[in-house]
Amino acid sequence: MTPTTHLDATFAALADPTRRAILARLALGEASVTELAEPFAMSQPAISKHLKVLELAGLISRGRDAQRRPCRLEAAPLAAANEWLEAYRQLWETRFENLDVLLQEMQAAEQQSTRRKPPKPRKKP
Amino acid sequence: MTPTTHLDATFAALADPTRRAILARLALGEASVTELAEPFAMSQPAISKHLKVLELAGLISRGRDAQRRPCRLEAAPLAAANEWLEAYRQLWETRFENLDVLLQEMQAAEQQSTRRKPPKPRKKP
Repeated sequence: MTPTTHLDATFAALADPTRRAILARLALGEASVTELAEPFAMSQPAISKHLKVLELAGLISRGRDAQRRPCRLEAAPLAAANEWLEAYRQLWETRFENLDVLLQEMQAAEQQSTRRKPPKPRKKP
Repeated sequence: MTPTTHLDATFAALADPTRRAILARLALGEASVTELAEPFAMSQPAISKHLKVLELAGLISRGRDAQRRPCRLEAAPLAAANEWLEAYRQLWETRFENLDVLLQEMQAAEQQSTRRKPPKPRKKP
């Protein structure tokens, strides 16, 4: 696979909540398919299908123990995906700063208008 | 969309090299569909299809100018995807450090063995 097709496979693998949850579980340590299937309301074949996608993307590897074949998280593709996203960090940080400035200006304007216009006294019935 | 389905849509949208290239172009500034189609060997309808995926994922917005409808990058979903990946940073950094240590150990061992065993003198023919 080229770096581009690697990124395609990584992002496609991450585009599913079950697969992301499997990775979150494996971040805590190796686990067998049975152990991975437990917290999900899913059959082992359904989990195995997700594991295949993760394995093809290089996000997990399987142990050699024939019976358990424990799954292990491989973090390198996550690092590559993160590196791609980092190129855009400046963009979202600038946008968030602009939003902060806008919010502060709105709050300042609101405070000024509150100070200038005291609430009208209530008419007595 | 919930944060989970947002992440699904973001990662799915990023799993394509043309869509990532479109985002890279839009990081430099707004562009019309015609301008975006130019560098790719693709028809405008094909590009429009990719733009629809990016728009549904909230990664781009379209301007109101009816003729041009310029596309603009929206960085917030990229920030959310980055945040998800950041949770795994420690994992890949530890793995990379371990690889570094292993490499250094291998180099040290190689240097030691080179020092201990000088190369055999070549037999003269």
